[in-house]
Amino acid sequence: MGRLFATYDLETPTTLEQAAKVIAGEQSSGTFLKLPGETDRLRERSGARVEQITATSTSRTPSLPCRISAESYTRGEITLSWPLDNMGTSLPNVLATVAGNLFELADVSALRLTDISFPKEFAMSYPGPTYGRLGTLALAGVKDRPMIGTIVKPSVGLSPVETASLVEKLVEGGIDFIKDDELQANGPHCPFEERLHEVMKVINSHADRTGKKVMYAFNITDELDTMRRNADLLQRAGGTCAMVSLFPLGLTGLTAIRRHVDLPLHCHRNGWGIYSRSPDIGISFRVWQKFWRLAGADHLHVNGIANKFTEADETVIENARSLGNPLSGEHGYQAMPVFSSGQTAVQMEETCQAVGHTDFIYCAGGGIMGHPGGVAGGVASLIQAAEAAVGGIPAHVFAKDHKELSQALELFGRKNGAGDGK
Amino acid sequence: MGRLFATYDLETPTTLEQAAKVIAGEQSSGTFLKLPGETDRLRERSGARVEQITATSTSRTPSLPCRISAESYTRGEITLSWPLDNMGTSLPNVLATVAGNLFELADVSALRLTDISFPKEFAMSYPGPTYGRLGTLALAGVKDRPMIGTIVKPSVGLSPVETASLVEKLVEGGIDFIKDDELQANGPHCPFEERLHEVMKVINSHADRTGKKVMYAFNITDELDTMRRNADLLQRAGGTCAMVSLFPLGLTGLTAIRRHVDLPLHCHRNGWGIYSRSPDIGISFRVWQKFWRLAGADHLHVNGIANKFTEADETVIENARSLGNPLSGEHGYQAMPVFSSGQTAVQMEETCQAVGHTDFIYCAGGGIMGHPGGVAGGVASLIQAAEAAVGGIPAHVFAKDHKELSQALELFGRKNGAGDGK
Repeated sequence: MGRLFATYDLETPTTLEQAAKVIAGEQSSGTFLKLPGETDRLRERSGARVEQITATSTSRTPSLPCRISAESYTRGEITLSWPLDNMGTSLPNVLATVAGNLFELADVSALRLTDISFPKEFAMSYPGPTYGRLGTLALAGVKDRPMIGTIVKPSVGLSPVETASLVEKLVEGGIDFIKDDELQANGPHCPFEERLHEVMKVINSHADRTGKKVMYAFNITDELDTMRRNADLLQRAGGTCAMVSLFPLGLTGLTAIRRHVDLPLHCHRNGWGIYSRSPDIGISFRVWQKFWRLAGADHLHVNGIANKFTEADETVIENARSLGNPLSGEHGYQAMPVFSSGQTAVQMEETCQAVGHTDFIYCAGGGIMGHPGGVAGGVASLIQAAEAAVGGIPAHVFAKDHKELSQALELFGRKNGAGDGK
Repeated sequence: MGRLFATYDLETPTTLEQAAKVIAGEQSSGTFLKLPGETDRLRERSGARVEQITATSTSRTPSLPCRISAESYTRGEITLSWPLDNMGTSLPNVLATVAGNLFELADVSALRLTDISFPKEFAMSYPGPTYGRLGTLALAGVKDRPMIGTIVKPSVGLSPVETASLVEKLVEGGIDFIKDDELQANGPHCPFEERLHEVMKVINSHADRTGKKVMYAFNITDELDTMRRNADLLQRAGGTCAMVSLFPLGLTGLTAIRRHVDLPLHCHRNGWGIYSRSPDIGISFRVWQKFWRLAGADHLHVNGIANKFTEADETVIENARSLGNPLSGEHGYQAMPVFSSGQTAVQMEETCQAVGHTDFIYCAGGGIMGHPGGVAGGVASLIQAAEAAVGGIPAHVFAKDHKELSQALELFGRKNGAGDGK
């Protein structure tokens, strides 16, 4: 069997060599006393190996509170490897190995898991996304351009009938994709089943008339029995997408629903700030997305250029591109990036160029609802922006004979509007 | 329906009032543009409310990298509340609400979720721990003192037969509780089913001879189908405890296994450092444990006094005590604290006094294996320490006519041994 490799950015009050050794021991066969059972043969077979150590800098103060104090704290990168024999091809057990107790060790004053490499054996256990990029586009009937989407707003508070009435405006406006907000759960004011019924009535009737079935990501996040029931209702009603919040589900929850439902899973990463916000603790998106793609994520949220949150544009783009990198041997497992957060027609050109392909979902909220031409104008402006980008024509040029795009660029222009992330 | 309350420790480049308003909006009915659908009536019904704001300090630099820069950053505590009508009594959806996108907001330069209060309606949806503190003690046949436990070490690398042979020494030594290390998964070198078979042969035969059935927490962490299969095998073999790693399972995964298996769930918190290590991002144990107790955690790891990790003793004790606080109306949902990490007979007295009750599991590794009297001596030293603490007799006095305790205090004494966390 192969070996699993993980890379960390760490800071230590001891030495990088010592910290690497402690982590390797703690996360495989070691304990704080040399035990009779820990023979050389056992350690050779089951111990984690330190593969690489690179020092990068030192500082006088620890980045995080640390029980061991030192004159100087050394920062660097280490790579460890584990025999797959220890944990098998089980993602939950891999997570406990590479991202378990080690974050609490007194030997580190900063620790981020920055990369992971899954050997090809994982492809035998995890089939990955059911639809992925190409399957989603085919199911939504969108060709050769990004899918234009939006989020139902207000996020919560609309009744099923009010939601359906908003959806009607959106599908009439020509949108490709709509999603529930991640806060839209299954509360008594807007129960799932009733919302599904009202919304699918609109979507199915529009599809019957026009041949275009708008993809709606219904939030089914819940306990497993309820999720399965709601996913079944969703499929029976002709729905084409289910949305879940990844942190509450866990890897085990996502795999369980992936195995149950034959629909693209639209995966929301709310809670991601806990893992990403501090430069000194957490897990990189580069690592995190690999777990979820293996477990079956079809769509993954990646924020957006000039977003209203905190990620830099370069990070957003690097994360979006990472979803297309092959993982676990030759298997692609490509997931579809979902851009969202303060998006309007303004950022489309840059997004298409930076991502390197156009198989993504581009969600705008205010960028559609706030357009002077109303919902139809907002959607048209985004489709025009996408067409310009795909055709290699600068947006401001294409806008000359495309009114809605022109209006959007003027209203949402990065210097004085929503597009700057305010 | 009641309201859900959450409290945050936050730092902001704007004002506490502004940050509180942004979070309340983002996590309920708001968006970055005032939308026609967001009526006053809707906001009144579905919006989050700012309940309380208290400033604590200011600083010149932001605690975390932040896109909005300011002359001064204000730190303080805010409490928000949500109508349960928004998300219903669904823990996964509560998590997405109180610990979702907000951590990424540019309006905060530090954010920790520090408290949560679940209204009594949750008791209708979540039955909580099946066994909890008293059920576990009854099942293990331990009365009026802490359960003495250990972890199989080396953590990984032993074969099923080697594991069983270590277990034999431990049960003969009089131990109450044994657990797999969280790294012991279901790999080809030590497959679950074979390990279960070999270990239960030892435990069942010892129970037949002596009437004492040692509780063994088998790590069943895995994808749900496999977990259910292994939990079934475990029950059929006469096993009395299943262990899971909480982060990989997620709330959805834990609830699913809770509903399937009638055994105490021994819940491991590996990965906890990501949530706890930074003072500027994350979730407090006070909050975190409430989610898991509602979802069905019977035992929860709380580290230990003078541990080898980084938590201060006061934090450890506060966390352990929190598992006994009632939650969701009148329902107790008491979970059993599990002390572990560098524990020996030395910390027993202080632990019993500080926790305020003795219904806990006390796991020692080196504190048993490293005892001069061998495994039996190590276990005896811990039982003696527990008896002394329960009887209110100082350990050093009780040690005068209890040899194993005396040896342990000498060897592991806090000033020069494992007990100081090294």
